[in-house]
Parts: sequence; structure tokens; C-alpha cells
Amino acid sequence: MYKNTDEKKFNENQVEGRNAVLEVFKSGRDIEKIIVAKGNTEGTIRRIMAMAADKGVVLQQVERKRLDEMSQTKNHQGVIALVSSHSYVSVEDILEKAKNKGKDPFIIILDEITDPHNFGAILRTADAAGADGVIISKRRSVGLTATVAKTSAGAIEYVPVAKVTNIANTIEDLKKAGLWIACTDMDGKSYFESDLKGPIALVIGSEGDGVSRLVKEKCDFTVSIPMFGQISSLNASVAAALFMYEVVRQRGNA
Amino acid sequence: MYKNTDEKKFNENQVEGRNAVLEVFKSGRDIEKIIVAKGNTEGTIRRIMAMAADKGVVLQQVERKRLDEMSQTKNHQGVIALVSSHSYVSVEDILEKAKNKGKDPFIIILDEITDPHNFGAILRTADAAGADGVIISKRRSVGLTATVAKTSAGAIEYVPVAKVTNIANTIEDLKKAGLWIACTDMDGKSYFESDLKGPIALVIGSEGDGVSRLVKEKCDFTVSIPMFGQISSLNASVAAALFMYEVVRQRGNA
Repeated sequence: MYKNTDEKKFNENQVEGRNAVLEVFKSGRDIEKIIVAKGNTEGTIRRIMAMAADKGVVLQQVERKRLDEMSQTKNHQGVIALVSSHSYVSVEDILEKAKNKGKDPFIIILDEITDPHNFGAILRTADAAGADGVIISKRRSVGLTATVAKTSAGAIEYVPVAKVTNIANTIEDLKKAGLWIACTDMDGKSYFESDLKGPIALVIGSEGDGVSRLVKEKCDFTVSIPMFGQISSLNASVAAALFMYEVVRQRGNA
Repeated sequence: MYKNTDEKKFNENQVEGRNAVLEVFKSGRDIEKIIVAKGNTEGTIRRIMAMAADKGVVLQQVERKRLDEMSQTKNHQGVIALVSSHSYVSVEDILEKAKNKGKDPFIIILDEITDPHNFGAILRTADAAGADGVIISKRRSVGLTATVAKTSAGAIEYVPVAKVTNIANTIEDLKKAGLWIACTDMDGKSYFESDLKGPIALVIGSEGDGVSRLVKEKCDFTVSIPMFGQISSLNASVAAALFMYEVVRQRGNA
């Protein structure tokens, strides 16, 4: 819902037209998504589609009418690119940065967070809690958009974000680097009673469905927030904050 | 700002979205009418329609466009319920309810929270953390609006809310009833190192200005969330959640 609203508003991260999109590719800037009109077989569009495939950029084909609605310049020529307002880092960068601080890595993994307000709020808390970085998935996740930047209250400038193709594979890499992977869900041990000390990555699931099964299976253990009321779940950014600050408490960072 | 907008625009008796409408049914409140989008055969909608039939609630099917026009949250998910207003309780009711549970009272006081999303999220966490009730100020606070109801994910049905004329006077009354009053702000002792056990009221300030001076002076002590990053504050509903769950932890409710 929020995402669509965003797309309707003027978005400075939206690049329109064949040459402009080609230039974005050449510039090396991070591209969130390429959107092309269905059935468009014009040569430059085909070239753009090949470049998207080559660089692992998400490609979406929509009715031309949809592009017309999205277009801010009214001259999209059948292609719109959504570029990141901020650049991503690599997972290795995040681990390296943590190592240089001389402390155990503390990483947040977002498994398909689609609400930019939640993503922004999580970045804000991640900065406050001293997390080393946030990892998101290339697909089915909101990227570093203007709304995320705004909701993060500036934290987007300070918290490194890595975008990966496959969260499950990344978890394997983090395990090899010595991290414990904690899945946050409804059916685990209370987070107060779980050991969250040492090198750790917290996996936060989507607002509706929680952590996906495949990702959950890769985790070392599951932790939950005890619930004493009638409703069955907390807001994703609230839950993320509770887990992050329990790591802070257990590390003795009072 | 939000308050005026809300008062002009929002109908407090309109509940939108599948989960919010289901919670209204569960709560046993009187529902005047259920309005669903024509041709919507999604599972939860069918369940809501069956519940309406079962309870003799008027069911109206309209074009989705009509629901879009009616919607205040712009996220009706194909269903809107018209219900009687949420009623406020008194501070005495909240204390009485806590006493009947045989446990120390645990109350949240919101000092001028004007953002309905934050208020809704705080109600949601208050329910989950087992708080006995929330106290808001009559002036300069958002009330129990449709946006609050939606953001609360149904918690508005379960968490008693009292609206008072003067927060400072109410704090005096709560002190007489034996509660400790904790001001949450930036310049206090770490909340991890503060004693939050026993009968307690947490005072949460506004998003921009924190707890007002007059209210702060009435509090017994001030507690803070340690911050390790570059940004200087957390989202109000995130901060409220961290304080509430530290009360949960210190009470040994793991």
C-alpha cells in the first residue's frame, strides 16, 4: 500500500527514458528495479533488459498504461528505472567494519520487509542499538527509497545496508564467519531467556507472514517475544527494536 | 495537527481492514453494518460475512470504488465495519481492573502523542505487554480514531483508555494509589539499570518535544534508552515498547 503511494508521488529516484536509463547503468549507481512496457521489443529496450539480467537487477513488465501513470516526465519511452537514493555495501563490508571496531558482529537480516515505514524505523533503531549493518533481499523487499530515508530520521546515512540475492545463502556465509543466526518468530523460546551474546544476526520476518520457511530452517534457533494480551503479533519495527535492545542488554551495554 | 485533521475527516465509528474487523467481532461490540466489496471471495472476507450472518448484522455489498471513497485509512482490504464509538474508561476503572487481576498496576501515560500511528502502535504493544491501561490527555492528543484503531491491529478493543483533563493532577492521584511514576526521556539513568518493578506508570512524551516540563517535574524518576549511534532519538512507539517490555522482563514475566 505504502509503496504504491510512493510511486504516485514525485520520486527523485525515478529515471525515465531509454538514454537516461542506459546512463544509469553506465554510472554504476544501484538500481532497485527496471520497469518496461509489455510487448516492447525496440532495440534499446532489449539492450536495457539484457543489462538488467546481466547485473541481477529486478525486471518488471507492466502494461504501458501503468508506466504512463507512473511517469513524471510524461516521456518515459517505455522504460522507467527506480534507482537507490543511497548506495548499498557488501556483507563482507559489514563484517569487516564490525571486526575493525573490535567487537562481535551484530547484524539485522530483513526477510521481505515491504513496508518502507517499518524499514525506516528499523534502520533508526539499528543505528541507536549500535548494530553493524542491515541485510535485505533483492526481491520482495522495499529498497532504500525516499520514504525509508525520511522514516529513518537520518539513520539511512549511518547504517550500512547490503542487498543480497538469496538470504538463505547469506546466512550460510555468516555462519562460516562465526555468527549465530537467531530467527525471530512466534514459536520460539522467550528472548529474555535466550542467549543473544556473541557474534549474532537477528532475522526479522515480513509484517504478514513472518520469516519464510526456507530462511527459518537455516537459522540456529528461534526467539520470541512473550505476549500477554489478546492480539497475536507486534508491529515489525517494534518487534525488531525489542530484539535489538535485548542484544544490547545481554552484551552489558547499559 | 493530526488531531484537527482527524476530527474533521475521520469517523471514529468506522473500522477498516480484515484483522481489525475480525477483532471487533471477537470483542463482542455492537456492529451496525458490515460493508464488503462485491465479488470479494477472499477467505477472511467470507469468514467475516458468515459471522455477520450468524450475529444478524446487516451486510452490504458495494462496488470496490465505493469502499475506496469511504476509506479513511486507504487500506480497507475490501471490508469496512460501522461500529459504535470506542468508549473511554476512568483512571479508577484501570486501577480497579489491575487490582482485580491481583497484580501490581502497570499503566502507560501518553503526554501529548499526536501521531495516530504511534498511538495505535503503542496500544498494540500495551496489549501484548499486559499493561492495564493507557491514559491520554484531553487536549493536544489524538483520540481513538479509525487510524488509531487500524494501527492498533485490534488492540483498541482490549486496552482500556482513559482521557483526563490534566496529566499532572492524574499523576498525583496515581502516586496516592501507590504507583511509581517513571518519566521516559533522554537524560535519565539507563532503563536496564533502573528499578521498574512494583506498581508503575510510564510517562511517554510527544514525538518532537518529549515529556513536558510540568509533567516531568511530577514524576518520581527519569529513565532513558542508551543510544550508541549517530541519531539522537527513537520513534515514540518504539521507545514506548522498549520501556514496556523492560517492565515485563523485570517483573519476571519471561
